[in-house]
Amino acid sequence: MPKVAVVMGSKSDADVCLPAIKVLRKFGVEVAARVISAHRTPEQAREFALSAVDNGFEVIIAAAGKAAHLAGVVAAHTTLPVIGIPVKSSTLDGLDSLLSMVQMPSGVPVACVGINGGENAGLLALQILSLKYPEIMKKLINHREAMAAQVAEDDADLQKEFS
Amino acid sequence: MPKVAVVMGSKSDADVCLPAIKVLRKFGVEVAARVISAHRTPEQAREFALSAVDNGFEVIIAAAGKAAHLAGVVAAHTTLPVIGIPVKSSTLDGLDSLLSMVQMPSGVPVACVGINGGENAGLLALQILSLKYPEIMKKLINHREAMAAQVAEDDADLQKEFS
Amino acid sequence: MPKVAVVMGSKSDADVCLPAIKVLRKFGVEVAARVISAHRTPEQAREFALSAVDNGFEVIIAAAGKAAHLAGVVAAHTTLPVIGIPVKSSTLDGLDSLLSMVQMPSGVPVACVGINGGENAGLLALQILSLKYPEIMKKLINHREAMAAQVAEDDADLQKEFS
Amino acid sequence: MPKVAVVMGSKSDADVCLPAIKVLRKFGVEVAARVISAHRTPEQAREFALSAVDNGFEVIIAAAGKAAHLAGVVAAHTTLPVIGIPVKSSTLDGLDSLLSMVQMPSGVPVACVGINGGENAGLLALQILSLKYPEIMKKLINHREAMAAQVAEDDADLQKEFS
Amino acid sequence: MPKVAVVMGSKSDADVCLPAIKVLRKFGVEVAARVISAHRTPEQAREFALSAVDNGFEVIIAAAGKAAHLAGVVAAHTTLPVIGIPVKSSTLDGLDSLLSMVQMPSGVPVACVGINGGENAGLLALQILSLKYPEIMKKLINHREAMAAQVAEDDADLQKEFS
Amino acid sequence: MPKVAVVMGSKSDADVCLPAIKVLRKFGVEVAARVISAHRTPEQAREFALSAVDNGFEVIIAAAGKAAHLAGVVAAHTTLPVIGIPVKSSTLDGLDSLLSMVQMPSGVPVACVGINGGENAGLLALQILSLKYPEIMKKLINHREAMAAQVAEDDADLQKEFS
Amino acid sequence: MPKVAVVMGSKSDADVCLPAIKVLRKFGVEVAARVISAHRTPEQAREFALSAVDNGFEVIIAAAGKAAHLAGVVAAHTTLPVIGIPVKSSTLDGLDSLLSMVQMPSGVPVACVGINGGENAGLLALQILSLKYPEIMKKLINHREAMAAQVAEDDADLQKEFS
Amino acid sequence: MPKVAVVMGSKSDADVCLPAIKVLRKFGVEVAARVISAHRTPEQAREFALSAVDNGFEVIIAAAGKAAHLAGVVAAHTTLPVIGIPVKSSTLDGLDSLLSMVQMPSGVPVACVGINGGENAGLLALQILSLKYPEIMKKLINHREAMAAQVAEDDADLQKEFS
Repeated sequence: MPKVAVVMGSKSDADVCLPAIKVLRKFGVEVAARVISAHRTPEQAREFALSAVDNGFEVIIAAAGKAAHLAGVVAAHTTLPVIGIPVKSSTLDGLDSLLSMVQMPSGVPVACVGINGGENAGLLALQILSLKYPEIMKKLINHREAMAAQVAEDDADLQKEFS
Repeated sequence: MPKVAVVMGSKSDADVCLPAIKVLRKFGVEVAARVISAHRTPEQAREFALSAVDNGFEVIIAAAGKAAHLAGVVAAHTTLPVIGIPVKSSTLDGLDSLLSMVQMPSGVPVACVGINGGENAGLLALQILSLKYPEIMKKLINHREAMAAQVAEDDADLQKEFS
Repeated sequence: MPKVAVVMGSKSDADVCLPAIKVLRKFGVEVAARVISAHRTPEQAREFALSAVDNGFEVIIAAAGKAAHLAGVVAAHTTLPVIGIPVKSSTLDGLDSLLSMVQMPSGVPVACVGINGGENAGLLALQILSLKYPEIMKKLINHREAMAAQVAEDDADLQKEFS
Repeated sequence: MPKVAVVMGSKSDADVCLPAIKVLRKFGVEVAARVISAHRTPEQAREFALSAVDNGFEVIIAAAGKAAHLAGVVAAHTTLPVIGIPVKSSTLDGLDSLLSMVQMPSGVPVACVGINGGENAGLLALQILSLKYPEIMKKLINHREAMAAQVAEDDADLQKEFS
Repeated sequence: MPKVAVVMGSKSDADVCLPAIKVLRKFGVEVAARVISAHRTPEQAREFALSAVDNGFEVIIAAAGKAAHLAGVVAAHTTLPVIGIPVKSSTLDGLDSLLSMVQMPSGVPVACVGINGGENAGLLALQILSLKYPEIMKKLINHREAMAAQVAEDDADLQKEFS
Repeated sequence: MPKVAVVMGSKSDADVCLPAIKVLRKFGVEVAARVISAHRTPEQAREFALSAVDNGFEVIIAAAGKAAHLAGVVAAHTTLPVIGIPVKSSTLDGLDSLLSMVQMPSGVPVACVGINGGENAGLLALQILSLKYPEIMKKLINHREAMAAQVAEDDADLQKEFS
Repeated sequence: MPKVAVVMGSKSDADVCLPAIKVLRKFGVEVAARVISAHRTPEQAREFALSAVDNGFEVIIAAAGKAAHLAGVVAAHTTLPVIGIPVKSSTLDGLDSLLSMVQMPSGVPVACVGINGGENAGLLALQILSLKYPEIMKKLINHREAMAAQVAEDDADLQKEFS
Repeated sequence: MPKVAVVMGSKSDADVCLPAIKVLRKFGVEVAARVISAHRTPEQAREFALSAVDNGFEVIIAAAGKAAHLAGVVAAHTTLPVIGIPVKSSTLDGLDSLLSMVQMPSGVPVACVGINGGENAGLLALQILSLKYPEIMKKLINHREAMAAQVAEDDADLQKEFS
């Protein structure tokens, strides 16, 4: 069973991370949820990242707001893929978090999803894991089909409503 | 040998993609470079994405400018991880490309790197592949050490220069 | 009778699209309202666009939020005029949707209206149709006169109130 | 023969408008190019718009920079479809022109294309005219095929170059 | 008695304009409040501006939201000083209105105040009138002193509260 | 003869101010050009503003870049109308200067023109002075006519060129 | 005992400043809270800054919104370190205040913290004072440890909740 | 003699840092210049920060571009005041660096100066040190006087030139 860590800079980011945790568990992936602050607990952030491989993690999801350094700090200490979720937690609509996460310098990438994009972070982790775990790819294809069916149903409803 | 596709929306994006291609090949990964436009060749974009798994690709890198739909269009047709490189190609400093790539709706993620972040897209692809191909992880660790050594050398030079 | 399609990326965009549907129907134009997602139902988006001419549509209105690719994806598969409505549906005030829609690459234009600009999308469709259907031009002139009369009434009220 | 007016706020916008004029003429459409400033020649702007239908114009393209009011001012005086080209002509990368053009109030739409999007403005005019002039639709389909062929050629070149 | 016109693009801008009207009347200046839309009633906007001098106005305040052309359109038809109030009325926090007003092309200036800056528009009109009407300058000096006294009082309260 | 002061925060702003000085002198207005920094020479800024009325100035134009406080600081010490020219002098395209100038708090307005809008600042000063000096209004009307004639000439040239 | 002044441009900024005052007092630092407006009480701002050293202040914290000149104006009249808190008080999410504070011209720096960053302003003042007052450094280290402990506790809670 | 460290994320930031180094040395302060990358040499960044007090540093200046984490990472490991210089090194005009530096979460402040604000970072360090080293305050006052004299000279030149 693959293992994913969902790390957030503050407990208040849990709502944004919940859809990631849910979709990962729905796919049968083991998830460890952590509160680790790049600035208030830098030693924990470092130790977490340095030991991530040994602890069996294969993908790390990091969510943070404002000057959102968490994903970058974790990525600096591991070669595991790190997915960043920029969280809107200041007055600036999440643009600060997005730029702080996505504009990483050459050499240490972060895989950034949209602002507050918890579910997509989970799905991206699954897409990454699906390369090694073929049963996840099957489930992803089913998930896509279910989404398409849901849109088709919404489409049918709307057509009825507006005809 | 893993295989990565580097797809760009226009031949003029090749400069931005070159560092991705280079670092992937340096790590021994097979790379296919393609010009496919989400808007001018939508059928090719769809066929490329639909057949990507069958063609042996494991990661797709998509680079585009302006209303940069290429990564999203490709991601809509495959469950392979898609890495997006927003390219600065309009007057807007790449912000249009970045938002067009990173702000994907729930259900279909793109793993976005920084504007013009070709090398990081290549490294992110390698980090993703390293889960399945352990020899890539070893090379990534070496690459990190080489980068650190280079910074240390720059540091020594600078200290000399400014002492 | 001319026919216009109003396509939206998600059922939650219906509120923004309603004024377009209303004004088109008020002018006697037939409207088909659809939920089609560029990312979750890419095949439907393609088929819809490819068959739009055969299905008798003359103008397509496409509304979407965030990385709003729907208008561009539809425009890539048809030469019918495609009007884009950027919808505010993320934390970024609709700027992401606007740039994702309006900054189309050379070759495949989208006719973009303002953020959440449902009514203007409907009116623009009518102005386009009025070239071929002269009775719509007459109604548009009447509509302009009615708007002007409403402003004049508001003006009279305000002058009274503040005198 | 349909007639399109390409109006620009300043002679310095001619470079941005040239691709619109070229593509329209290539498609056999008659084009009148004008310099009319919404602010420096408001009477001409009004008279131009009020007499546009009588002068046989079917679509108006308006290009302007900074506080780009030209498209809106013209649109206020006619029910013909008005396509706006926001021109980058200040220090602000064209964002001022874009917002001044696209964010029109309810009732008077402008069909906005991307910043400096001259060619797309011309193509959008052709797509609008194609509803009434079927031979233009045929030419548009050919144009799309030629574009796709060009991308395919670039793709072949790139594959050769990078293999 | 000097006369100032406060023109707004929509009745919904009245709240933003009220502080301008209030401060002008408090200073004994005659105010005419009008709803005139640059886009929905362009003829009224033109006639208002062309006859403003004859109607005895000395300063014009124009408030509008979104693609806020009203101040520029009025300024194009008169050499009276035109003060623009950008109104937040879209999702974009007023930035669209601000840029549409302040970035006027060379030749036709608008005197722009801050977003929703009704009171400052009124005070700026008074400062302009004070050059010709010395009693207004005296009142402005008193007004500044009253403001300073109010701040001093707030300061005293705060010091008490936090000591 | 009316007198206008053109104050700039740095000698490097002189290029932006020159068009203001030129147009004012062309209209026969006396101009004093000064370098006064709100931050590096705060005492001079204060004394200049406090003595501006006594020194016969009727309008003050203040140009500054970055955190452009000069106009606001001058406005805080006088009730004369203060026109602000935001100067692009940082990497931020002048947006920093614009917001620092235009977003003044209630009570102390600045009449802001566009970024680098030197000529418009001069013309706005003339429009303000024209209320008291009718001969300036006559010259402004002539100036408008000359501008319109220039645009008409450009229009004729362009029509010739593109016919 | 060191002394810090917390100056705000308006009484409405008190909520943002309160965390600064609280953390300073918690560390045993004497705090004077003041309402002083750079624009409405410029003389008080100047006198406050000119006499700050004589009045025993060692650090000044200045909070203001919109065109937030207060920190810069104070910094222009003293060589004491001035910490600026940009306050969100307009429609622009605090970006106007941030740029007005942080983009100071060469020669007169302001130490800017994040938008509404009251607590960080207080902590930064303490870090500055800790160079001279070693007991403050000890308390800062304890404060950091307490923060880390709090995050660790949140982490433990979260792990429990999501296991 | 006080000691200041000037740390930069890349050797290419040296030009921006040079004015800081120069002004500090001109004031007689000992400066150590270092290249340390938060992402490529995270261990060095941590060790540098953890040992900064023991190594005799009293203020740290950190310059970085893009997702500029260096100042925050250093600040997380020390209670010394950390001054951040956001460097423009991407296509985004330095806004990414600014937001990544200034929007620090509560608990760990960075004292941010303007984009590319090397000299101001040096002067801010001197203002901080001047609390403990009174001779620096004297020099700062002299420096302010020299700046004012320079502006006065520029003012005299300009007045001559434009009279």
